[in-house]
Amino acid sequence: MGSITKPSPFAPKSLPRLPPIDGVRFATAEAGIRYQGRTDLLLGIFDEGTVAAGVLTRSKTCSAPVLHCRDNLAHSVPARALVVNSGNANAFTGRRGSDAVAMTVEFAAKAVAAQSGNGIYIASTGVIGEPLDANKFVSLLETMAKSASADRFEAAGRAILTTDTYPKLATRMVDIGGVAVTINGICKGAGMIAPDMATMLCFMFTDAAISQSVLQRMISRHVETTFNCMTVDGDTSTSDTCLLFATGAAVKRGQRPIVDAADLELAAFEAALHDLMRDLAIQVAKDGEGLTKFVTFEVSGAENDLAARRIALACANSPILKTAIAGEDPNWGRVVMAVGKSGEAADRDRLSIWFGPHCVASHGERAEGYVEKTVAAYMKNAEIRIALDVGIGAGKATVWTCDLTHDYVSINADYRS
Amino acid sequence: MGSITKPSPFAPKSLPRLPPIDGVRFATAEAGIRYQGRTDLLLGIFDEGTVAAGVLTRSKTCSAPVLHCRDNLAHSVPARALVVNSGNANAFTGRRGSDAVAMTVEFAAKAVAAQSGNGIYIASTGVIGEPLDANKFVSLLETMAKSASADRFEAAGRAILTTDTYPKLATRMVDIGGVAVTINGICKGAGMIAPDMATMLCFMFTDAAISQSVLQRMISRHVETTFNCMTVDGDTSTSDTCLLFATGAAVKRGQRPIVDAADLELAAFEAALHDLMRDLAIQVAKDGEGLTKFVTFEVSGAENDLAARRIALACANSPILKTAIAGEDPNWGRVVMAVGKSGEAADRDRLSIWFGPHCVASHGERAEGYVEKTVAAYMKNAEIRIALDVGIGAGKATVWTCDLTHDYVSINADYRS
Repeated sequence: MGSITKPSPFAPKSLPRLPPIDGVRFATAEAGIRYQGRTDLLLGIFDEGTVAAGVLTRSKTCSAPVLHCRDNLAHSVPARALVVNSGNANAFTGRRGSDAVAMTVEFAAKAVAAQSGNGIYIASTGVIGEPLDANKFVSLLETMAKSASADRFEAAGRAILTTDTYPKLATRMVDIGGVAVTINGICKGAGMIAPDMATMLCFMFTDAAISQSVLQRMISRHVETTFNCMTVDGDTSTSDTCLLFATGAAVKRGQRPIVDAADLELAAFEAALHDLMRDLAIQVAKDGEGLTKFVTFEVSGAENDLAARRIALACANSPILKTAIAGEDPNWGRVVMAVGKSGEAADRDRLSIWFGPHCVASHGERAEGYVEKTVAAYMKNAEIRIALDVGIGAGKATVWTCDLTHDYVSINADYRS
Repeated sequence: MGSITKPSPFAPKSLPRLPPIDGVRFATAEAGIRYQGRTDLLLGIFDEGTVAAGVLTRSKTCSAPVLHCRDNLAHSVPARALVVNSGNANAFTGRRGSDAVAMTVEFAAKAVAAQSGNGIYIASTGVIGEPLDANKFVSLLETMAKSASADRFEAAGRAILTTDTYPKLATRMVDIGGVAVTINGICKGAGMIAPDMATMLCFMFTDAAISQSVLQRMISRHVETTFNCMTVDGDTSTSDTCLLFATGAAVKRGQRPIVDAADLELAAFEAALHDLMRDLAIQVAKDGEGLTKFVTFEVSGAENDLAARRIALACANSPILKTAIAGEDPNWGRVVMAVGKSGEAADRDRLSIWFGPHCVASHGERAEGYVEKTVAAYMKNAEIRIALDVGIGAGKATVWTCDLTHDYVSINADYRS
């Protein structure tokens, strides 16, 4: 792995403590797939009746585990277990890749005493194109299943990391019809991040009793304004996987199961789920490889919301703008460039730009009273907010990203050495 | 400007000598627009009867000079002069930007004794958003016009540079109906390079007698497989301008004017023009900011040629792949990723990849007999060729780019300081 191991400046001083979710247990292990001296294998076990919803990468060269999960989701297969390994993505591994998935499914099903392999969800993250030797870890699954326990979210979050410098954890508690339910999420990702569906890996768990079709609808909708509005380097992973598991255990405490997406009692849950997904997406951007700054692009006045997101992503994926931000240079001309290249409707003479509270450009030219020194001082902040008003419509979007630094180059030039 | 001034490893040991073109004269000057101690202003003067054809950036936030040239080209306005300044792009400068163009046109027309300002073509390159003070240079134009001479192509090529480390010059000589004609080209560009129409600035000159409509057709066609197949950082400039001026002076030596695009006598000229444009595009990629390696992506077997170009550009614009190449890591998994994210039709199980002569992946998995050490040794070369066969159609494309290095970050973090 790369030689850069210094933590993100946004690494949290303390991690949130995620409460147990009734019906979910975890175990982790050091399988030595690629990394030494750290956990790289996660087994999640779900009580019977757990439903799964999710979104997966749109990459045309997606990994074998993604194909497997896509098939499970297409058939709304209830979830019995989740197996995740880090260090090897099992992507572009051909027949051997599918065989490794099949072997993992078989051993995991046996370990959790599932009646068939259908309920096993799988994800792999790490190097692409290297055959994954499932023999390295399948024999561990039985022992892991025996020792699995509910209170292991932080350990679970750590076992799925690759170049991340901290685990991404979030939790929300919310009422459904007077019954408190919990949503926990763990997430990983630091480079090759420009989700076209979901971030590299994100797993969420809840004890709420909500039908699969309602969950699927919610996750598909909220991924658009959370993970799909976050980018590190514009590179879409072969392995993006975002899954939500709902055990339904809250029924035991009196929750009436929700089966209708229009159910009014769902509102608070849906808001909390969106908030949790947004939280995790921002945590990923704040651990972008080699970053020194966290950057938010807020676009308003675009032709529509999709156009606004494309303009924001054109900014957030521009190497020349991201390096200027790394250099603390308020080079707003590069924002103009990115708007121009986005391909979306824009009118130079209506465009206005703010760096933090400072209006730098207005109606097609440098703002009256622009003082470079003031804006340059603003650029010293660790969190930078750049707002653009396109001035032609009502579309808006917010996109989170980070700067492009020497360390990004070092990390990715040395990744496999 | 940035602190990195070391020349590209591909800087030519000696520059080609461009012969004079009958009907074209140049003068250059140090106007001190941004740079000190170097020329930053170019005046080209054309004999009456010179036609102009060209392509301009598709950026929605294009510069004032681009708008001016677009208007000239739309009306097939014959060319009397070309004025180019470096150091300031006159982009996103609103009303003042148009005023600066109008003032330049007025002074240039007077200097070359043009009957109206219509025949003045203008281009500006440099910082975006900074008002351009045309007073700094318009008064120089009259003196420059008096001293203009034909044998100044190298000086012209130098006056238009910004972060380039060498001038881009090319020349071809070719027959039209037994009469020898010359095509010369000068070009600039090193960063913010992902032409969506033409590179930042490219000017070509010929004494051939070819009608404006035929020239326009040729340049529009050939830009697709030359400048539009070259990228440094995926960032499209506000100022991309590619113009071809034909004085028609070869008529004096007996050339029959060409007015039909299907004229058989045009074939050699068209081939030479394409070759010259390709040559200049490659020269730009070889001077990409901070590069250590020149990289060619050759895609075959795509659904069609456009799909092939998009796949090649997805590779050529991938930060994570370009940094791996900088690190001399044969990380072909990142090529797989880029194909997957391109959005074009692909079938993982038919994809094959070569690094130079070495097949690294075949039919959806690592090639039999792949030896990492051998391919790692190949990556030490300064010129890297990566070939991909998508395996589903007959589409093909070649795209030229460079690696993404620490120096790119340094150059662009410090550009305005």
